[in-house]
Amino acid sequence: MRILILNPNTTAAMTEKLVDVARAVAAPGTELIGVQPSWGVSAVQGYADGFVSAAASLDRVRALRAEGLEWDATVYAGFGDHGREGLAEVLRGPVVPIAEAAAMAACLIGHRYAVVTTTTRSVPQIRDILTVAGLADRCAGIHATGLPVLAAPEELLAAFEVQAARAIEAGANVLCLGSGAMAGWAQTASERVGVPVVDGLTAAVTFAEGLVRVGLGQASSPARTSA
Amino acid sequence: MRILILNPNTTAAMTEKLVDVARAVAAPGTELIGVQPSWGVSAVQGYADGFVSAAASLDRVRALRAEGLEWDATVYAGFGDHGREGLAEVLRGPVVPIAEAAAMAACLIGHRYAVVTTTTRSVPQIRDILTVAGLADRCAGIHATGLPVLAAPEELLAAFEVQAARAIEAGANVLCLGSGAMAGWAQTASERVGVPVVDGLTAAVTFAEGLVRVGLGQASSPARTSA
Amino acid sequence: MRILILNPNTTAAMTEKLVDVARAVAAPGTELIGVQPSWGVSAVQGYADGFVSAAASLDRVRALRAEGLEWDATVYAGFGDHGREGLAEVLRGPVVPIAEAAAMAACLIGHRYAVVTTTTRSVPQIRDILTVAGLADRCAGIHATGLPVLAAPEELLAAFEVQAARAIEAGANVLCLGSGAMAGWAQTASERVGVPVVDGLTAAVTFAEGLVRVGLGQASSPARTSA
Amino acid sequence: MRILILNPNTTAAMTEKLVDVARAVAAPGTELIGVQPSWGVSAVQGYADGFVSAAASLDRVRALRAEGLEWDATVYAGFGDHGREGLAEVLRGPVVPIAEAAAMAACLIGHRYAVVTTTTRSVPQIRDILTVAGLADRCAGIHATGLPVLAAPEELLAAFEVQAARAIEAGANVLCLGSGAMAGWAQTASERVGVPVVDGLTAAVTFAEGLVRVGLGQASSPARTSA
Amino acid sequence: MRILILNPNTTAAMTEKLVDVARAVAAPGTELIGVQPSWGVSAVQGYADGFVSAAASLDRVRALRAEGLEWDATVYAGFGDHGREGLAEVLRGPVVPIAEAAAMAACLIGHRYAVVTTTTRSVPQIRDILTVAGLADRCAGIHATGLPVLAAPEELLAAFEVQAARAIEAGANVLCLGSGAMAGWAQTASERVGVPVVDGLTAAVTFAEGLVRVGLGQASSPARTSA
Amino acid sequence: MRILILNPNTTAAMTEKLVDVARAVAAPGTELIGVQPSWGVSAVQGYADGFVSAAASLDRVRALRAEGLEWDATVYAGFGDHGREGLAEVLRGPVVPIAEAAAMAACLIGHRYAVVTTTTRSVPQIRDILTVAGLADRCAGIHATGLPVLAAPEELLAAFEVQAARAIEAGANVLCLGSGAMAGWAQTASERVGVPVVDGLTAAVTFAEGLVRVGLGQASSPARTSA
Repeated sequence: MRILILNPNTTAAMTEKLVDVARAVAAPGTELIGVQPSWGVSAVQGYADGFVSAAASLDRVRALRAEGLEWDATVYAGFGDHGREGLAEVLRGPVVPIAEAAAMAACLIGHRYAVVTTTTRSVPQIRDILTVAGLADRCAGIHATGLPVLAAPEELLAAFEVQAARAIEAGANVLCLGSGAMAGWAQTASERVGVPVVDGLTAAVTFAEGLVRVGLGQASSPARTSA
Repeated sequence: MRILILNPNTTAAMTEKLVDVARAVAAPGTELIGVQPSWGVSAVQGYADGFVSAAASLDRVRALRAEGLEWDATVYAGFGDHGREGLAEVLRGPVVPIAEAAAMAACLIGHRYAVVTTTTRSVPQIRDILTVAGLADRCAGIHATGLPVLAAPEELLAAFEVQAARAIEAGANVLCLGSGAMAGWAQTASERVGVPVVDGLTAAVTFAEGLVRVGLGQASSPARTSA
Repeated sequence: MRILILNPNTTAAMTEKLVDVARAVAAPGTELIGVQPSWGVSAVQGYADGFVSAAASLDRVRALRAEGLEWDATVYAGFGDHGREGLAEVLRGPVVPIAEAAAMAACLIGHRYAVVTTTTRSVPQIRDILTVAGLADRCAGIHATGLPVLAAPEELLAAFEVQAARAIEAGANVLCLGSGAMAGWAQTASERVGVPVVDGLTAAVTFAEGLVRVGLGQASSPARTSA
Repeated sequence: MRILILNPNTTAAMTEKLVDVARAVAAPGTELIGVQPSWGVSAVQGYADGFVSAAASLDRVRALRAEGLEWDATVYAGFGDHGREGLAEVLRGPVVPIAEAAAMAACLIGHRYAVVTTTTRSVPQIRDILTVAGLADRCAGIHATGLPVLAAPEELLAAFEVQAARAIEAGANVLCLGSGAMAGWAQTASERVGVPVVDGLTAAVTFAEGLVRVGLGQASSPARTSA
Repeated sequence: MRILILNPNTTAAMTEKLVDVARAVAAPGTELIGVQPSWGVSAVQGYADGFVSAAASLDRVRALRAEGLEWDATVYAGFGDHGREGLAEVLRGPVVPIAEAAAMAACLIGHRYAVVTTTTRSVPQIRDILTVAGLADRCAGIHATGLPVLAAPEELLAAFEVQAARAIEAGANVLCLGSGAMAGWAQTASERVGVPVVDGLTAAVTFAEGLVRVGLGQASSPARTSA
Repeated sequence: MRILILNPNTTAAMTEKLVDVARAVAAPGTELIGVQPSWGVSAVQGYADGFVSAAASLDRVRALRAEGLEWDATVYAGFGDHGREGLAEVLRGPVVPIAEAAAMAACLIGHRYAVVTTTTRSVPQIRDILTVAGLADRCAGIHATGLPVLAAPEELLAAFEVQAARAIEAGANVLCLGSGAMAGWAQTASERVGVPVVDGLTAAVTFAEGLVRVGLGQASSPARTSA
């Protein structure tokens, strides 16, 4: 099976890193293809960036389709980024966003989860995405380290630890890495904070594989009423 | 005061119509400027269109700012369209989307409201937008006529009436026109269905004027935690 | 157009102050008439006071109607006070309560809002009103200064600042003045706390004007079922 | 122990009937005192009536207190009527409203409940009261017969049956009599509709007795914050 | 009338204590029969214990029925323990669990309530039970002392006081004893913490008596749809 | 990796069928072990059966552990059955219940989902489980065919189709097979009803594999507070 890892920003080095982290958990027969938009922003910081990335990501997958590329499922690797439902409309296989996958994995192994992200700007975006996804009920909080996405890893990890402690005190017993830039950190972070830490990217890759294996694609539009 | 009427699709004739409808309710001193994106889609039908329009709308207002245009508030005239929070980040004055304005006006005059929109594709989008806006509690339903945005008005109005009856039976005592393409219909529709009908465009124009008059602009990002 | 500013307590000086603050934002052609009940309580502190004021306010507007006074919309100037739906039944034009207007304005310009009120007794009342209004989803907290309604302004403002800091820390990026007695403070308070501060009275005046301009009055009772 | 049955309307014959129905379930040692306001409305139909009754009911219990009457708990016998929290402020013993008692009893014996009331005007009021009480989650619907409070019993019962069937189809497995005027009907209605039917009045009387026996009175105001 | 006090753990001394506490509030004519499962766990600490106790409790009441014992209502005396709906299926009279009874009593006398329990393991269980019961809306928090169920009373009471203060600060104005092991403490705890404290056991006994007196038994399964 | 397929009823033939269906989607290296309790009920019909099965299932996995069996993850194959959190306490690897997996898969590919189950008794149980799991927000309804679990497949499928049509009309665009007894039907049912149909068993198997591959096990108890 072939899975597209769609990085919503234009930073190719980030795409490569995402694919590396994804490869470590993908099943033997899974081929991973990393792509990023050909225009947009180098890092999504805020809503405006997010909407641009959504449109640029759509543009990119349409171009890939036009070029004749075929794939089975898409992992949308922006944590809390907009665009999922648009991608789902233009693609046939499942589209698994990393924030939703992280929240689902967290709900499967814990009671309440919290998200620890980078910048404070991301907090409302993540909150919105989880609300629309219907996954906010068991969210005990969304916390930001206050550091930029590209801060030094050790500094970011120390700040993560501080926020994690607050989240755990508030009732979370599992945490989610709240940024694609934290991909690959789950093990280290979990050892530091003493509770399981979910990496939405790796969760999304395995859930996407699963949906393909069970034969589920995107549903079409619902009927004309929504109570 | 100067208000930008931002039509998220590229159809200039639609922009003109929106401005005409808006003018009928704007206060004497209010100048209305209608704009639409310079790229994107001619009508928003579905999520993919919506994300493209959001990005194109952002692009347009950034261009206007770069050209030195100044204005006080923005009415975002796509019913249930994405992009509001992105526009709010790049603009200083308030950004009032027509779906939120419609729901607020409906809540101020009724007990529970329903939305009647055009295509079935729009139903989940509108639902998402109202949920994120925190305005879904008093929504008794979102109904689609099943007709395209550009159907003949009389046909659309007849279909509106059918859905309105269902909504009223389900407990709504006020309705919202669920598409920018229905702008200007409120009076006629209300006479047909026997309950007040809110046109989000006209509501948004007056709310935008109000926010400017009381001196409120967009808030900056919230602090680092969201429970 | 003529708007009634209905102060739910019997303190005429308060009514005058409300009208003064309202006048600063009302449109040129808007006539404001301030009234208060002829019986009831001099300040609403608690639920019992609130229900008495609701009945007394109803009594007052019925008397005004009986005297032949006509007006287009009513601003109900008790923050979180009961009575709105009763007033809406006996009046034809829209009735805009200041708590609901404040929450709506806050939602239009920010992500999550908080209310800072005077006495602790007011907290559950405001919470109830926002819940019934379907506007509690984006409320990050309701905080009381613990001071009486008639405390010295400077003392109240200092206490406001303390609670505002807590609210902002909890994720609010816009605040609402939680008492009619704070009318007129928005500018000063906003400068002190660093986020936009909404005065429900001024918001309500402009929203009421807007509803009248777009031709919306109160809806009648909904149909026989509510799911 | 002495329990006050507080009928919120001024119809003394209704008060007598309420006391008769209540007496059939009260414990041997319980004395029941029926009262109604000395002013207000003869039947609560709509919000305006409800707020007047709330104030009039408050006035009445204050007068009774001033006259030196002592009692242990109050049953507030208007279904979905406002005023509970005000009464709770001025009385020391528990105040048990019949709508809340009905919903609680229904939740104790069933999965989801529905309310069947008289006039359509009552539907939103009951909905509001149950929402504020935090008891709406398991409410499967609020249905009105569309008949006036004083319709002929047999006609009302037949209409009750029609609405009950709809409610049961929608998932309710227990019903609540949605009007004080239906007090005493539970047995007959239950036989007709095939599911348990709760009379909020009798439930409230026994819950009030229970609260007194376990020594619980009204709490005072909460602390200064409400998240 | 005869009420079964069903202690979900196998500790007979606990059953005796529960019956003693219950007797102090039961009406004169009420006979109380205390029972516990003949197998299972000596104290419920965690979900696994809870499911075992639920099955063992079911087994016990089926055995009692098979032996020909008859009773009118059942108080299920595990705070937040699973099993209620199962017991309700096999018994004819009402089944009143102490957590639900506590939350209901708390809602009848206060604005928002909090639960203070013993071990941290109980927190998510109680949360789940209150959520399913539709009683979580007015819950301001669930706090654990962190001490085992069998800690020394004075130590437990001191720890209770610490958590109570946090809960009150967070907006609760009434507390619930969050463990069957705390039965009988309400008076003492209330004096210590300054707000009413509800003992779910005594509340449940009186509510069960009430349901029997008004003639309400368990409803059968709902119809085939649940929206 | 080794996954335990835990059938909560005692019917070994059902276990075999579940394993057969699971095998069709499991990854090449995955070993599946099917087990069922050694006591309990032959089919779970109602809550009482469910609590017995939960305890019997716990008993079974404890016995397997005592016998020295090791495995990596558990699929709990009762749709909407109680017991998950108890199993999670006594097992180290993830426990994936089929109802939660179905709802998650449905949310990943559609907008709103509905469940179609067998007996009406199952409806409230499924509702409770989805509510506690925090997955009810996007559930458009739970429908029962009204037929017993062991009805003839063709008859059940025809009844499924009828309920599916109702669910789709109500806004669902993806359906979940609401009973372990329907395992293996997804493809056929989907062709009949025209929307994707999720089999919770196959979804759960692949999600369990995914959680193991990314290294996530069960979280321990949360901290002492839950807001």
